[in-house]
Amino acid sequence: MSKNGSPETAQVAILLGSDSDLPVMKKCLDSLAALEVAYDIVVASAHRTPGRVAAYVDRCETAGVQVFICAAGGAAHLAGAVAAHTTLPVLGVPLAVPPLDGMDSLLATVQMPPGIPVGTLAAGAFGATNAGILAAQILSLADPALRERVRESRLAMREKVLVKNARMRAELGLPEEG
Amino acid sequence: MSKNGSPETAQVAILLGSDSDLPVMKKCLDSLAALEVAYDIVVASAHRTPGRVAAYVDRCETAGVQVFICAAGGAAHLAGAVAAHTTLPVLGVPLAVPPLDGMDSLLATVQMPPGIPVGTLAAGAFGATNAGILAAQILSLADPALRERVRESRLAMREKVLVKNARMRAELGLPEEG
Amino acid sequence: MSKNGSPETAQVAILLGSDSDLPVMKKCLDSLAALEVAYDIVVASAHRTPGRVAAYVDRCETAGVQVFICAAGGAAHLAGAVAAHTTLPVLGVPLAVPPLDGMDSLLATVQMPPGIPVGTLAAGAFGATNAGILAAQILSLADPALRERVRESRLAMREKVLVKNARMRAELGLPEEG
Amino acid sequence: MSKNGSPETAQVAILLGSDSDLPVMKKCLDSLAALEVAYDIVVASAHRTPGRVAAYVDRCETAGVQVFICAAGGAAHLAGAVAAHTTLPVLGVPLAVPPLDGMDSLLATVQMPPGIPVGTLAAGAFGATNAGILAAQILSLADPALRERVRESRLAMREKVLVKNARMRAELGLPEEG
Amino acid sequence: MSKNGSPETAQVAILLGSDSDLPVMKKCLDSLAALEVAYDIVVASAHRTPGRVAAYVDRCETAGVQVFICAAGGAAHLAGAVAAHTTLPVLGVPLAVPPLDGMDSLLATVQMPPGIPVGTLAAGAFGATNAGILAAQILSLADPALRERVRESRLAMREKVLVKNARMRAELGLPEEG
Amino acid sequence: MSKNGSPETAQVAILLGSDSDLPVMKKCLDSLAALEVAYDIVVASAHRTPGRVAAYVDRCETAGVQVFICAAGGAAHLAGAVAAHTTLPVLGVPLAVPPLDGMDSLLATVQMPPGIPVGTLAAGAFGATNAGILAAQILSLADPALRERVRESRLAMREKVLVKNARMRAELGLPEEG
Amino acid sequence: MSKNGSPETAQVAILLGSDSDLPVMKKCLDSLAALEVAYDIVVASAHRTPGRVAAYVDRCETAGVQVFICAAGGAAHLAGAVAAHTTLPVLGVPLAVPPLDGMDSLLATVQMPPGIPVGTLAAGAFGATNAGILAAQILSLADPALRERVRESRLAMREKVLVKNARMRAELGLPEEG
Amino acid sequence: MSKNGSPETAQVAILLGSDSDLPVMKKCLDSLAALEVAYDIVVASAHRTPGRVAAYVDRCETAGVQVFICAAGGAAHLAGAVAAHTTLPVLGVPLAVPPLDGMDSLLATVQMPPGIPVGTLAAGAFGATNAGILAAQILSLADPALRERVRESRLAMREKVLVKNARMRAELGLPEEG
Repeated sequence: MSKNGSPETAQVAILLGSDSDLPVMKKCLDSLAALEVAYDIVVASAHRTPGRVAAYVDRCETAGVQVFICAAGGAAHLAGAVAAHTTLPVLGVPLAVPPLDGMDSLLATVQMPPGIPVGTLAAGAFGATNAGILAAQILSLADPALRERVRESRLAMREKVLVKNARMRAELGLPEEG
Repeated sequence: MSKNGSPETAQVAILLGSDSDLPVMKKCLDSLAALEVAYDIVVASAHRTPGRVAAYVDRCETAGVQVFICAAGGAAHLAGAVAAHTTLPVLGVPLAVPPLDGMDSLLATVQMPPGIPVGTLAAGAFGATNAGILAAQILSLADPALRERVRESRLAMREKVLVKNARMRAELGLPEEG
Repeated sequence: MSKNGSPETAQVAILLGSDSDLPVMKKCLDSLAALEVAYDIVVASAHRTPGRVAAYVDRCETAGVQVFICAAGGAAHLAGAVAAHTTLPVLGVPLAVPPLDGMDSLLATVQMPPGIPVGTLAAGAFGATNAGILAAQILSLADPALRERVRESRLAMREKVLVKNARMRAELGLPEEG
Repeated sequence: MSKNGSPETAQVAILLGSDSDLPVMKKCLDSLAALEVAYDIVVASAHRTPGRVAAYVDRCETAGVQVFICAAGGAAHLAGAVAAHTTLPVLGVPLAVPPLDGMDSLLATVQMPPGIPVGTLAAGAFGATNAGILAAQILSLADPALRERVRESRLAMREKVLVKNARMRAELGLPEEG
Repeated sequence: MSKNGSPETAQVAILLGSDSDLPVMKKCLDSLAALEVAYDIVVASAHRTPGRVAAYVDRCETAGVQVFICAAGGAAHLAGAVAAHTTLPVLGVPLAVPPLDGMDSLLATVQMPPGIPVGTLAAGAFGATNAGILAAQILSLADPALRERVRESRLAMREKVLVKNARMRAELGLPEEG
Repeated sequence: MSKNGSPETAQVAILLGSDSDLPVMKKCLDSLAALEVAYDIVVASAHRTPGRVAAYVDRCETAGVQVFICAAGGAAHLAGAVAAHTTLPVLGVPLAVPPLDGMDSLLATVQMPPGIPVGTLAAGAFGATNAGILAAQILSLADPALRERVRESRLAMREKVLVKNARMRAELGLPEEG
Repeated sequence: MSKNGSPETAQVAILLGSDSDLPVMKKCLDSLAALEVAYDIVVASAHRTPGRVAAYVDRCETAGVQVFICAAGGAAHLAGAVAAHTTLPVLGVPLAVPPLDGMDSLLATVQMPPGIPVGTLAAGAFGATNAGILAAQILSLADPALRERVRESRLAMREKVLVKNARMRAELGLPEEG
Repeated sequence: MSKNGSPETAQVAILLGSDSDLPVMKKCLDSLAALEVAYDIVVASAHRTPGRVAAYVDRCETAGVQVFICAAGGAAHLAGAVAAHTTLPVLGVPLAVPPLDGMDSLLATVQMPPGIPVGTLAAGAFGATNAGILAAQILSLADPALRERVRESRLAMREKVLVKNARMRAELGLPEEG
């Protein structure tokens, strides 16, 4: 049921403004996969294929998708365009493109007018990872098992900090942290 | 049950970094009230009262609060501090304080590291309104009646655009839009 | 034929993201009126009324409108949304809204992806005036009488500089420029 | 008649502030060539060769050129200098030069005073492509065949999004989009 | 001989992009007057009256003017346009205009390409005052009496700091500085 | 002994680039006074009175001053100039001056080269208050009574948050926080 | 006693938001080592391990650590989080992470609210070096031998400028400076 | 007489904040050499060697140097520090250093307070070249032969534009410009 690759089986639908956004957005797929959240992902430009964006959003809404994640760069309107077509939660990931390298993408994604919210994550790879996690947190409100996986993932992340701390101290020739 | 003013009865908990943030954040209360979402709201500074923030977040989580909204200005860490203490969805509203007037608040709220997402809204009043709506959208995933109110509110917003359009055209002495 | 207030009689269609944009955009109406270019103007938000934007653009295209002018603030997507629905020339006026005061509007309007151009004017009132003039310049390519009015307006502008120069020098107690 | 390389046969005249701008601006030549719009292109600096800029603009205007495209970096005055010498439509492409990498070029191109519009495209390569397309859109108002080519190019662009979408989904091991 | 108001008697020629620049630029006239440097001042827009700018610069050069001061806002090209027409020293004062309030003016003035320098002063009133002083410093290289006045003015400025210091300490109820 | 107004009796020396900086910097005096830290304060410009700055720093160092606080706006070099003349800790407060309103002051204060640190506080009034507190924290390392006052002040600040929280909730008609 | 690697023997405690911050922060360790200041260093994220940060700060405070240095990037809250838990002096080093490359880190570190100061150093490697030196300057107020080492280090730095000057002049074929 | 490498024989004195500034500033030496202007150049940091800066400025002033050129990065105070010690014209070249890459250097150089002007050139290599040319333009006011060389250099620059234009057109397969 919970299989990637179709709005009918996915909980999260991801729209990329361009296929060149995939390398960074793979981090989003990774964070969804790690939390066992099913997703669909399409390339659909707010500017080049506005009808496709609207049609895909409608199909997703009918199919039961619950959260949208939109990633784009420059005058990054994709998240806003999706938010204009649905009242489901929409998350935006501003991607950096040269030469302004993300400040344009961030402002074009986050500065939405009253009535049409886009929950915006950090510009670039950090935001790609976090969009997946925030989508999972939202879905977990009605899914105790997912809620548990989100919590465990947070705890694992804490363990990793300790491991890195130990490694760094060893590298510096310092004693183990007491 | 769904009464404002206590984590035990609220679905959304709002934290303000300072009571001076209230005038702008009243727009958030308004958008929650209009959608009949119960909220609690406290002043709790990430920097001046970090223990209080953590304790309040814990109490909210136990009490069944589902979404946090955090508003702060300057080195706006409040949303990040809340997100560090919970795996529930956290929304951030960057508020403008002089002299940098919101760019600092926006970047300090949105640029979170991987693992700890904050869904960030627009700087200032637009973001205050939208945080309430996004929280309602998230809650509506498990609440069909709220989902319907969110949809109706969107439709009402559309009507308002038409009314404003008619008024503007009348003011300009133009015929009614055909 | 050339009457304001309907796509059927207008050469230029103006879309405002909000009726609060009118005070600044009156400068655009003034520059079109001074050059005797017929326009229609509507409030139509890319985010609150995306269907309305698309329908209005279609109607304009059918009716023979030749240039679109779009004014919006914040995550100013209106010009991009119009450009996504037409291959007619689209001009964008980024309007300043607090607290970021126009930098967000400018970047969200101008930084369009390849394939979907928006000819962007200055942020604020200067851009409002200039959008009207650039629209007239474009229309004048096929309208020698308009071309002449554009040229005369440029010359009149030059005269005005001289008048202001004379007035300033008088105010400073300097002799007339030799 | 419609041959590149002379104002007498070109519809669009392109001015580069420096020959080092050519690699990026080749994208502009490509978009004009794809739409079969004839152009002339010269290196002519607003600062190093102001007389040459004025003379070339005059010659172009006499020869029947209809649109100017100007590309420059830094204190990018070239588009403004051309716009000061003609009432034909002028499009500006802000090019990124170190160390400020395009923010200076963008502001110096777009923030024109009332009376002298420059239709500004995105900073860098995206804007180079789009300047060619916007010029073609402007010319197409009086050229139905060109209008058709512009429309077809838009449709082809849409097809390309679908192809890229399919390729991306295959790469991710996802089923074809239903 | 050294009278204000004509290039023939002035050492410094001041160009304002608009008469609305005068209130701020009066500070420049004040600093020149205090140092007894004769100036001429005209309104001459690089964009609205490019021919006038070139003609005025030529006349000034013939008449023996030695330094140009140019003040403009937005896409502030005036100093660059003057520098393109002369090899005399050109100083630029970026003036703040809404909504970007001077960052555009500063970058458009200072980021000149190699070969055409503009010595740029601070944005706004500070730069207006300083342009007059820097012009005087330049002229003083060949004018020992002016050099002396510049030095005395610097010393007087130092005295004023001491007076302000004493007044502030008195206001705070502190003893005189020992 | 611990009296304000002379380097000989003060622990902290405050330098203002201009007497117009006093209204904002009164917040610094208030925070020092509240913690019973004796200060001297002078107007001394890094640019207008560089010798005075050096002489005052030398006198302070001889007299036993332990911390410097420097406040300036624009190309705010005062803290850097003081840091260049002493190896005592130097704190910088960037003050906002029009038109760039503090971003220039912040960068000119904080971006010091390796070897000459300036501990920089927030731009404007927040930084003025905090410079006083950080100076007290530094001095408190060798002064247990001051350390205690700093701690109590922090606790009092926490109480004030609770009072403001109660007032806000009352104003909103919410019950007391449980 | 004065050994690196434990709060019990260190005077300065360094917190890194991530182990990837170490390469830049090695410059901080170098400047502390050169001045013979003992430090402890841990990886402890304000967001991923908030409890660990608080516990480590408490342990350090009990153990007699006197100064904290915190380095983080993006929405860099680490220094603020530490400052919220202690009244000891806290220094912040904003580290650059892509794509915004340090402007976000700087604003999130420095723009602290009144009451909770963070003495902020330059973004990146310069700030890393300077945090170590400023910590030493603070500690030296109560440690005459350290004060002497700080002074000698400053003098040595001056010598190095002279050596580099001589080398540069030789490279340029210029005579020794007279 | 006019030999490089000593204040006694130089007309222009160049101060670098660091020897790492030389590679970019070689462009300044080149432009001075091309115009046969004698210079001296030293490494002298406003922060690390403030006394050396003051002493060198005094020596230069006594020796008859006429113009100062100062290049520095980050909180670039060098030009301001020199301007504080002399009433001779001071030119500033803001150099880019990571991670803020020149915006900090530009603002710290140009935003000088009233009374102490620094004529600021573009950030980076363009400004390095132009500082040499502006210095020559200033000196040429009293040196007709130099004035002639400056003019010829400008003309040669124009020729180079034409050569580059021809080369570019050939590369593109376009006919020679008519």
